[in-house]
Amino acid sequence: MRQVIECVPNFSEGRHRDTVDALAAAVREVSGVRLVNVSADPDHHRTVLTFLGEPGAVAEAAFRCARVAVERIDLRSHQGVHPRIGAVDVMPFIPLRNVEMPTCAQVAREVGYRIARELDVPVYFYEHAALPSRPTDLPTIRRGGFERWAGRPLIGDRAPDAGPAFLHPTAGAAIVGARGPLIAFNVNLSTDRLEVAQHIARTIRQERKRIPQLAGVRALGLLLASRGIVQVSLNLTQPDRSPLWWVLEYVRERAVEQGVQILETELIGVAPASAIAGVAAHYLQNPALGEEHILDLWLDPEWKP
Amino acid sequence: MRQVIECVPNFSEGRHRDTVDALAAAVREVSGVRLVNVSADPDHHRTVLTFLGEPGAVAEAAFRCARVAVERIDLRSHQGVHPRIGAVDVMPFIPLRNVEMPTCAQVAREVGYRIARELDVPVYFYEHAALPSRPTDLPTIRRGGFERWAGRPLIGDRAPDAGPAFLHPTAGAAIVGARGPLIAFNVNLSTDRLEVAQHIARTIRQERKRIPQLAGVRALGLLLASRGIVQVSLNLTQPDRSPLWWVLEYVRERAVEQGVQILETELIGVAPASAIAGVAAHYLQNPALGEEHILDLWLDPEWKP
Repeated sequence: MRQVIECVPNFSEGRHRDTVDALAAAVREVSGVRLVNVSADPDHHRTVLTFLGEPGAVAEAAFRCARVAVERIDLRSHQGVHPRIGAVDVMPFIPLRNVEMPTCAQVAREVGYRIARELDVPVYFYEHAALPSRPTDLPTIRRGGFERWAGRPLIGDRAPDAGPAFLHPTAGAAIVGARGPLIAFNVNLSTDRLEVAQHIARTIRQERKRIPQLAGVRALGLLLASRGIVQVSLNLTQPDRSPLWWVLEYVRERAVEQGVQILETELIGVAPASAIAGVAAHYLQNPALGEEHILDLWLDPEWKP
Repeated sequence: MRQVIECVPNFSEGRHRDTVDALAAAVREVSGVRLVNVSADPDHHRTVLTFLGEPGAVAEAAFRCARVAVERIDLRSHQGVHPRIGAVDVMPFIPLRNVEMPTCAQVAREVGYRIARELDVPVYFYEHAALPSRPTDLPTIRRGGFERWAGRPLIGDRAPDAGPAFLHPTAGAAIVGARGPLIAFNVNLSTDRLEVAQHIARTIRQERKRIPQLAGVRALGLLLASRGIVQVSLNLTQPDRSPLWWVLEYVRERAVEQGVQILETELIGVAPASAIAGVAAHYLQNPALGEEHILDLWLDPEWKP
C-alpha cells in the first residue's frame, strides 16, 4: 500500500517571484512528489508550499526547497507582518494515507538533522517531532523571532535540537516537525484599523478555553499594508472541532460589533474535503452533506469516507 | 488507463426498505463496481442509486438492479409525487474518467436492449443514447407517465426503441441513456401550500430562457405529504453554468416574495467536487477557492484539477 505524507513548509519570502518559483521548482524536480499549492503573500512576506508523496520523496523535496530558501532568503532585510525566525520558518510533515504520525516524526528528524548538517542552520523540532523535555509548541519556539536571537548564543532553553548554537546569519533557524492536518484561514476586514483585527484575535485566544469550536484556533491580527486593510489570520489546528463556517461567523459577529464587515477570506494552501463539505452543508442547510457526497473522491479506489 | 463510468438509475420505490436493500445488493454483488450513494425518498416513492466502475462491470450491475426492480416493483399500486413511467424509470450512464460520451451511449444501448429482451420491458433511449429521429429529452419521453400508457399500444411517436409495444403490466417502461453530470437538488419550504413550490418551479421554467444560470435547470413543485411541507425539486443539467449557491439564493428570493422560508435542502446522490467547492467559495467570500483546494483529491494519482 502506497504511503503518502504531506509537507507544508512556510518560507520567509512572499514578494520576489523568482525566489517563489525557485522554491516550487526544487519540489517539482523530485520524482514522485506532487506540488499541490503555492500560496505567496506580499504583506506576510511569506510563501507556503503544499506537496505530497511517499515519505522518502517528500523528505528529499523538503530538503531541496529548504536549501533554496537558505541560499536565497536574507532575514536581515526581511520585513513582514507574520512572526518568523528563519528562512525555512516552519516545516511540518503530516501523515495522509497508510502511514502514522511516528513516520512523519522520523521524516521531520531526518530532514531537520540534514538541514542542520548541510546548511549550517540551527533546527528546532516541534509537536510530534519534539525531543523529550523540549518545548513542542510552535509559537513558543518561535517567540522573539529572528531579530531577538540574531547574534546571541542559543543556550539553555533556547538551545537548538540540532546544528549551531547561533542563528544562521541570513537564514535564522528552522522549526521542523510533525503534526495533524491544519487549516490556515485568513479573514480580511473592511478597515485599516489594526486594533480591530487584534481585538478579535485576542478575543479568540481568550475564548478558546471556554468555547469548544475555538479550542485549537490560533489567531493573529495583522495589517495588510499593500491593500490598506487588516486581517484576522487563523490556524485551525483541530479542524474536526472547528468548522470553517463556524469560525467565519464567529469572526463576523465580532467584526460587526466593531462596525466592520468581512471583505473576503483566504485559504492558505489546501483544506480537507470534510471541511469544504462542512461549509457547503451549513450554508445549503443540508446537515447530512459530507465528503462522501463529493463524486470525484470516489474515483480514487483507495479513498474511503 | 482505467476507464470509469457512472450509473445513476432512478427506481419507483422509496418506501420499502427490503426492496431498496435488494436494489443496492444487486449492485454490490458485481466485482469492481463501487456503490457510492443510495437516496430513497418516501414522498417521491423513488430511490436513486449512484455507482461507478469500468464500463463492463457497471453495465452488468445496471442490468442486475434493473432486474430486481422489474421483479419487485408494481406500478399499478404505486403513488408518488415524482413523475414516472416505469419501475426502472430512468437509467443514465455518465462518462467520468478516460472515457467519452459515445462509450456511455453504447453501454446504455447494450443494457437497454438487454432489459427489453430479458425482462420484456419496452425501452426508450434518451439524450446521447437516443436513436436518430427520436425524442432525446427525458421529460418529453416520460410525458403522461405509467397511468397514461398502461394497456395502450405504444405506436407512432410512442413506439419504444426496443422491446414490446405495450408497457410491462407492472414495471412500465424504462428510459435508458447517456448524459453529462447533473446535480439533483431539492429545496424544502416552510409551508404546506403546494402552489408556492409550483409557482417557483414555473418561474424557473419561464426564466431559464432568459437567465444563463437557469439555462439547464429543470424544476418541479411537489408536496411532501409525510412531512407536511412542499419542495422545489431541481435538476441542474448544466452544473458548470448553474452554481448551486446561485440557484439556492434564487429560490430563496422567490420564496421570500411569497412569505416563505427555506427549511433545508437535499442533495440526491452526489455532486462534483467543483460544485461543492463553488458553494464554499461563495459563502466564504473566497472566489479563488476551487476543487484544487481540496486536499483529498490530490491523493488520487490520476486526479487533475
